[in-house]
Amino acid sequence: MTADLAVAQLTERHRATLDKALQAIRTREYWSPHPEHPKAYGDGHGLDAAEGKAAFEALLGKRFAFDGSGHADQPGTDEWTGAEISPYGIDLGVSYPHADLDTLLAAMRAAMPSWRDAGPETRALVCLEILARINARTHEFAHAVMHTSGQAFTMAFQAGGPHAQDRGLEAVAYAYQEQTRTPSSAHWVKPQGKRDPLKLRTTFKAVPRGVSLLIGCNTFPTWNGFPGLFASLATGNPVLVKPHPRAILPLALTVRIAREVLGEAGFDPDLVCLVAERPGEGIAKTLALRPEIRIIDYTGSTSFGDWLETNARQAQVYTEKAGVNTVVVDSTDDYRGMLGNLAFALSLYSGQMCTTPQNLLIPRDGIDTDAGHKTYDEVVADLAAAVDKLLGDDARANALLGAIVNPQVRERLDGVASLGTVALASRSVAHPEFPDALVRTPAIVTLDGAKPDDEAAYLSECFGPVSFAVAVDSTADALALLRRTVREKGAMTVGAYTTSAEVERAVEEVCEEESANLSLNLTGGVYVNQTAAFADFHGTGGNPAANATLCDGAFVANRFRTVEVRRPE
Amino acid sequence: MTADLAVAQLTERHRATLDKALQAIRTREYWSPHPEHPKAYGDGHGLDAAEGKAAFEALLGKRFAFDGSGHADQPGTDEWTGAEISPYGIDLGVSYPHADLDTLLAAMRAAMPSWRDAGPETRALVCLEILARINARTHEFAHAVMHTSGQAFTMAFQAGGPHAQDRGLEAVAYAYQEQTRTPSSAHWVKPQGKRDPLKLRTTFKAVPRGVSLLIGCNTFPTWNGFPGLFASLATGNPVLVKPHPRAILPLALTVRIAREVLGEAGFDPDLVCLVAERPGEGIAKTLALRPEIRIIDYTGSTSFGDWLETNARQAQVYTEKAGVNTVVVDSTDDYRGMLGNLAFALSLYSGQMCTTPQNLLIPRDGIDTDAGHKTYDEVVADLAAAVDKLLGDDARANALLGAIVNPQVRERLDGVASLGTVALASRSVAHPEFPDALVRTPAIVTLDGAKPDDEAAYLSECFGPVSFAVAVDSTADALALLRRTVREKGAMTVGAYTTSAEVERAVEEVCEEESANLSLNLTGGVYVNQTAAFADFHGTGGNPAANATLCDGAFVANRFRTVEVRRPE
Repeated sequence: MTADLAVAQLTERHRATLDKALQAIRTREYWSPHPEHPKAYGDGHGLDAAEGKAAFEALLGKRFAFDGSGHADQPGTDEWTGAEISPYGIDLGVSYPHADLDTLLAAMRAAMPSWRDAGPETRALVCLEILARINARTHEFAHAVMHTSGQAFTMAFQAGGPHAQDRGLEAVAYAYQEQTRTPSSAHWVKPQGKRDPLKLRTTFKAVPRGVSLLIGCNTFPTWNGFPGLFASLATGNPVLVKPHPRAILPLALTVRIAREVLGEAGFDPDLVCLVAERPGEGIAKTLALRPEIRIIDYTGSTSFGDWLETNARQAQVYTEKAGVNTVVVDSTDDYRGMLGNLAFALSLYSGQMCTTPQNLLIPRDGIDTDAGHKTYDEVVADLAAAVDKLLGDDARANALLGAIVNPQVRERLDGVASLGTVALASRSVAHPEFPDALVRTPAIVTLDGAKPDDEAAYLSECFGPVSFAVAVDSTADALALLRRTVREKGAMTVGAYTTSAEVERAVEEVCEEESANLSLNLTGGVYVNQTAAFADFHGTGGNPAANATLCDGAFVANRFRTVEVRRPE
Repeated sequence: MTADLAVAQLTERHRATLDKALQAIRTREYWSPHPEHPKAYGDGHGLDAAEGKAAFEALLGKRFAFDGSGHADQPGTDEWTGAEISPYGIDLGVSYPHADLDTLLAAMRAAMPSWRDAGPETRALVCLEILARINARTHEFAHAVMHTSGQAFTMAFQAGGPHAQDRGLEAVAYAYQEQTRTPSSAHWVKPQGKRDPLKLRTTFKAVPRGVSLLIGCNTFPTWNGFPGLFASLATGNPVLVKPHPRAILPLALTVRIAREVLGEAGFDPDLVCLVAERPGEGIAKTLALRPEIRIIDYTGSTSFGDWLETNARQAQVYTEKAGVNTVVVDSTDDYRGMLGNLAFALSLYSGQMCTTPQNLLIPRDGIDTDAGHKTYDEVVADLAAAVDKLLGDDARANALLGAIVNPQVRERLDGVASLGTVALASRSVAHPEFPDALVRTPAIVTLDGAKPDDEAAYLSECFGPVSFAVAVDSTADALALLRRTVREKGAMTVGAYTTSAEVERAVEEVCEEESANLSLNLTGGVYVNQTAAFADFHGTGGNPAANATLCDGAFVANRFRTVEVRRPE
């Protein structure tokens, strides 16, 4: 095999990073090799801001080229499709390959043996080279993520760039560790008393399951996509990337870089392919049932996630679906900090995160705080005021909120008055650069946990900038509702504010029993809806919101199998 | 909590064994803490042969008592049932609790919190104490396994005793390792340039999924049952044991010992319960769909395994189902060794192992051997002669064959003449001690891989003492048929005999692509149908014969979830 990128070179570049990542998943302390600040890029470290913007703009209005690397284009391309329109109003005008699946999947399967035979370390190093090249183009990715997800630039840069790359690297580290827990060979010598011992030489080899399908999402195409993509690739599986029709570009860039690196390292670029779909084609459903597809990673609606889990029986299916995130408000010794923290959590990306709190459970008799007892109405009004204050300046509001990702979110937001009393109305914010962007502040609606009529609202996911201040009879009632919500609807996050050790333990107990991650008394610069790779688990995989967590052993262990060969010695 | 068995005591007794087990799963070298020889027991190390036999005989004809330990009997028992008749002809006459499931499952769920809070190390140590007490009663278990599975005494002793205990210990080691990969707490400190760093204190806790259901099998109640039982218990889940109606006693003994140890260690004995079923009740189907059941371990038919995987969607389902095991015979430099090895593999426990070879693929032009070229007919005749010679002495035959486990196996054996030409007929062997035992030698039937009419026979599992010598056009044809068989029907084992490095590599390639474990050129005292805990994987979990392997990270990683709690620091 002739390769421009030799293993020795990859080892020199990336083995130390892999070792640090392996260390980080053991200690779960803060670590990232990917700078978070836009100014850290350029001047020898990848594209700078202007280069990234230019690179993004150069993609618009064209067919997306996969052969820039000098390698052949994807097999089986039968037409070009794509109709992405930025939530900021730009028509991206990029078209992507649509494929004849028989041809494409056969090519992907044919690419497997040499990738399998390369072994876990080489695969990890190639994945790290892909991530390093993605990292170098973070500014370009930031625009691509911004103009597909609607995230504000800084968030698109960070969450779509270094944070997503961290999650990809974390998956590579878990995959490498899992595949190397078993030695590649062993001598087995079993004593037989006075007779000669029995002796075998045994080899163990990690083998892939088959083609892995990534079904991308609209809001976090890279952050939610990279873990599954890199977990599958690092365990030897080809990955077919089927992006959300509104958020193709960030994953197309990813596929292009992956193909380029694979080719340079002497592997078949068809180990990573993109498939775009014609409007309304619903190709994910067809793909999910193909016998070649043995792994599926999916982020999206509960209904399609459940469909995948029920019907794609030939595949390992990893899903992140809808949930209803709750914050229990019992008491606080930093009332102002709590309000500010919650206001930020509700506002960030207009609440369009799977981790944004939806239901704030507040005792109707009010809560004790460092600023005195506050009634339910005061808490709601003070929170509304905190949101107003946070978003009072349009520049700051635009920087935090981003744009509404799609018409369904806007429709839900427009309909909130029918759900309950609007304590904080959503307002439009003008965007200085993109006049067609739909930027909206979050709404807060009051509901009553004791009213059966309100239950349908607070027990459904209302994805987007809508949260419910749910009045409950007591903290004990709040915990009962929290338990029921997590058990029946799932949750990616739970938050709680309390000064009582007893309440704290009671919330923890509910979270342990219902398998939900908990953030307690956040009042500073960490928010319930943000998690960091290496340190935090994203979801638990143990409640209805997701059947897997990012990232742990279970997320990678079943993406490959170990084949044992025994020979007498 | 007052406990007769303090953690310090358990640590002193078992921590070193746990450490050795953790080492063994890393090196996969030979290791076992459980003596294999019957004479190793007694005289201070558990029951000796006479004591074990007496203990077994004292169980017969009675209600099986769970309260021998002084702890209360199982909750919800509404009647006593059981109709085990030994394949050796004895009516065991033991009755076991049938339960009201609402009562039983509620009690099991109520037992969870303190077991969860005990943490991975204490759980592992308690499991090791259970295994140590089971080990001390190996002679009693041997009789119980023999008189439910039909295994000959020595096999029942070894496979049902120390080997099963090894598999249980292996599962505990994997479970402990998996739960302790993440630290129990971490300090997260994220630099913020000139501002103060963000700081969090994070705790991580392994939490159980819920009640785990073990659906036992008839042939290897302990060997196939212990891995799932101990993997689930060690990860914090209560385990409900639903044995095969013909093989209740070995698992009832297991449950009794587990309850005794749990109680002594200060935990609720209801963490491990037994449920027997009335004849024809089919309680597994009811149990499998209960919302409390979150994990299922099953060994048995493909049809029920598939049903579980499709329908028990609320649970993690681990299945070992039917498969068609193949041996490719290409060439050998030890013809006599090959014949002897295969004869033993076909005879052991009358071929009633999920790992017994079924299809021997032999080129119709014959094979090259150290004893000259042998035609297809010669190979078949010589193998038949080797089986005859191995089983020529009735005492030896009885010691190897054991008894036919159930009427279905006998019926299949009696019908072999309809499948093809019988090259070796099965004969009955008289048992000196148990005149009603049905002891039968294996049959070999010749089939033609080129005849479409023969395909139905060799592409179906014919569980029991029947193997097919399938004539193929070439070794390449044999490999094609091997591939198709593994892909469509699954395989727990593949064997091959060849002196050609090229053929060896080609067989390996098929096994790597279809995910099957391979034994090459076994001619001595190791057999294709035997695997050892810590060293060998049992199945791969990657072909239709099983969706999990015994034992690896994937077998344990999804039996618990990690709940994270973050607090500002």
